[in-house]
Amino acid sequence: MSHTPVVDTALVEKMDALGRAAVSTREALALSSTDKRNQALIKAAAQVRARRAEILEANRQDMEVAQARGLSLAMLDRLKLDDKRVESMAKGLEDIAALPDPIGSIAAEWTRPNGLVIQRVRVPLGVIGIIYESRPNVTADAGALCLKSGNPVILRGGSESRKSSAAIHECLVHGLESVGLPPASVQLVPTPDRAAVGLMLAGLSGAINVIVPRGGRSLVERVQAEARVPVIGHLEGLCHVYVDRDADPAMAKDIVLNAKMRRTGICGSAETLLVDRGGAATHLKALVEALLAAGCEVRGDADVQRVDPRVTAATELDWRTEYLDAIISVRVVDGVEAAIDHIAHYGSSHTDSIVTGNKTIAEEFLRRVDSAIVLHNASTQFADGGEFGMGAEIGISTDRFHARGPVGVEQLTSYKYVVRGAGQVRPG
Amino acid sequence: MSHTPVVDTALVEKMDALGRAAVSTREALALSSTDKRNQALIKAAAQVRARRAEILEANRQDMEVAQARGLSLAMLDRLKLDDKRVESMAKGLEDIAALPDPIGSIAAEWTRPNGLVIQRVRVPLGVIGIIYESRPNVTADAGALCLKSGNPVILRGGSESRKSSAAIHECLVHGLESVGLPPASVQLVPTPDRAAVGLMLAGLSGAINVIVPRGGRSLVERVQAEARVPVIGHLEGLCHVYVDRDADPAMAKDIVLNAKMRRTGICGSAETLLVDRGGAATHLKALVEALLAAGCEVRGDADVQRVDPRVTAATELDWRTEYLDAIISVRVVDGVEAAIDHIAHYGSSHTDSIVTGNKTIAEEFLRRVDSAIVLHNASTQFADGGEFGMGAEIGISTDRFHARGPVGVEQLTSYKYVVRGAGQVRPG
Repeated sequence: MSHTPVVDTALVEKMDALGRAAVSTREALALSSTDKRNQALIKAAAQVRARRAEILEANRQDMEVAQARGLSLAMLDRLKLDDKRVESMAKGLEDIAALPDPIGSIAAEWTRPNGLVIQRVRVPLGVIGIIYESRPNVTADAGALCLKSGNPVILRGGSESRKSSAAIHECLVHGLESVGLPPASVQLVPTPDRAAVGLMLAGLSGAINVIVPRGGRSLVERVQAEARVPVIGHLEGLCHVYVDRDADPAMAKDIVLNAKMRRTGICGSAETLLVDRGGAATHLKALVEALLAAGCEVRGDADVQRVDPRVTAATELDWRTEYLDAIISVRVVDGVEAAIDHIAHYGSSHTDSIVTGNKTIAEEFLRRVDSAIVLHNASTQFADGGEFGMGAEIGISTDRFHARGPVGVEQLTSYKYVVRGAGQVRPG
Repeated sequence: MSHTPVVDTALVEKMDALGRAAVSTREALALSSTDKRNQALIKAAAQVRARRAEILEANRQDMEVAQARGLSLAMLDRLKLDDKRVESMAKGLEDIAALPDPIGSIAAEWTRPNGLVIQRVRVPLGVIGIIYESRPNVTADAGALCLKSGNPVILRGGSESRKSSAAIHECLVHGLESVGLPPASVQLVPTPDRAAVGLMLAGLSGAINVIVPRGGRSLVERVQAEARVPVIGHLEGLCHVYVDRDADPAMAKDIVLNAKMRRTGICGSAETLLVDRGGAATHLKALVEALLAAGCEVRGDADVQRVDPRVTAATELDWRTEYLDAIISVRVVDGVEAAIDHIAHYGSSHTDSIVTGNKTIAEEFLRRVDSAIVLHNASTQFADGGEFGMGAEIGISTDRFHARGPVGVEQLTSYKYVVRGAGQVRPG
């Protein structure tokens, strides 16, 4: 919980200079026109396409180092860029340009009996620090979301994606410069020194307003332990699907398979299937066999093991594990009450779904499960800003403070109250 | 920035027990009906009236100790209760009962092209810790706002108001018990030990979700330095009125006098008056003389000193001081640009007002001044949740994160997404 004193004064000075540069762009960025910020993103997208060869070459060098260091195949896959991924990055920048501008939009407006007209107007949040791991496309994504929402950003990517991120960052800076926005609006930490992360978490001498971590559990835990500034954090997604006795069997099968297997490595993928004892006779065997047939490993309690010899025994640890893999834990529970209790005890308050034809039971589940996203008769894999219609997102927040659920451009804003009067003074 | 290790294990255990008790009420409170929470408040109000003599006697004992300790007259006034203050506390509880219930209200609803219906539903924030100073009525106010918004609360009042707060707290507990809500929904820290504050700032072993400090600068600074959980904080209110050359003289006089003198001790009172050089000939003398005539001490720059010999010289420190008293600093500035610059440099991003008949100049000010509340032709003393029509408030947040401006019941909520489908799975 304590942070080690940092003695590298050269690093402190270098990082503080990034902080001061970010702060110096705050006003220009906050007051810049929608069109200017959008044009910067569109020019950056064009630049990404124009410099594709350069970006791929930088990535090839990163991959070479990563392979020599013996990074896992999963990490190498996250690091790797190809033509398709570069194009999708450029497209992503254009998509963010096409989103509505949250800045200056009026979230609410009302008139008081004394004639004062009060508006709640969205404004940027401030300087955002983003700390992420190996995916180089986060440099484009996160940089663009912050730029769109008028927030200066300091990006600190994983050291393994250093050259790729630098090449992508140059495209963003080109976009900024070509419309006359300050290039320091989007900065990339130039050093791989891990102490830089600690300095960002301490706020860079007051420069950073918010930290957004994007990465695995160890990064998120470091951030939560060390951060001295507000964090928009997402913990793990230990998502559940509860299949009630009144579920339609075909729908239950479709939803469970999609929730678990569409993509196993995303935070909205299901990790635990809860089956109502009152419906186990009709549902359990079919669901377990569909999962096994789809190539999913199934770990279950005694009831579940009985339906198929391939089911291994689930331990206490299984109910607490975010596999992010083709593995699922399955448990038979005594109705919706027991399902809600299981989720309260083992869940991560991320995303949980009920499958049932019974509206009363569904509403009970939706009301009582205390997660950022609760669904009825839909897959947990819908936990995504794009699927919610919010455009690109920076993650799913499991915090209750400031932003919960998908964090898109609107969640990267604060607001101010603008009050217009005609000479009113306060009586009394 | 570091917190001293706490060795008093008995205190740690006692405080952690408060934390666990608060957590244990979370679900019951979050799922309780609007009517139950309102009835608890109404019963508590009746109890405050019924126990008036008891509350006043407890307060008399607190006052005796405080006088013996030599507390300042201002502090004694904040501590003192009388019939009128007790009645206004009871009325305050009823007013909060009458507010709309934020919990369960649908902040937004939309349907996706695939038929999913998404609702953003307000839910409580979690366990709130409130740390305050001498005013015993905060016990009723803050307790009631948290109860209304479905949040368990742990109240830690100033040691000087100990007996008064305990008597008021009993009324709240009576209200809770009489409707069958858990009495631990509103708890009062029973010990005057200041180490209890440190434990709350550290989160009571994960029990506290949010800290709200209510008090002066030293409390707010301690909270900001030590808190390991999110804080809804308000710093000082260094509020400005800028009188433009195009201001109506009578309106300017009314607004300046009201902004400074209606109440000098509240955070929305003006501390600095900026007068446009282009309008100084017409406005300055009249404003300064009106302030002096109202009993306000005026400290000014050389231009201001010239208009009246009673004006003393303002120093650099004056532009940075929240007097909370009948003192104002006055400066002549070169138009709206210089006013905006002065406010950016010296202000506290709380509340600032422009007086002008020129709409273009007004809009420039409203757009560019980066404060929680910006006003045109209205007094800064409107910076208040009640005046905004938001009902009672717990303070004015100068943070940009989560809540900015008046913090009422709605700002004490989080939200969840409720998604209703008909078997949708995510393609691709």
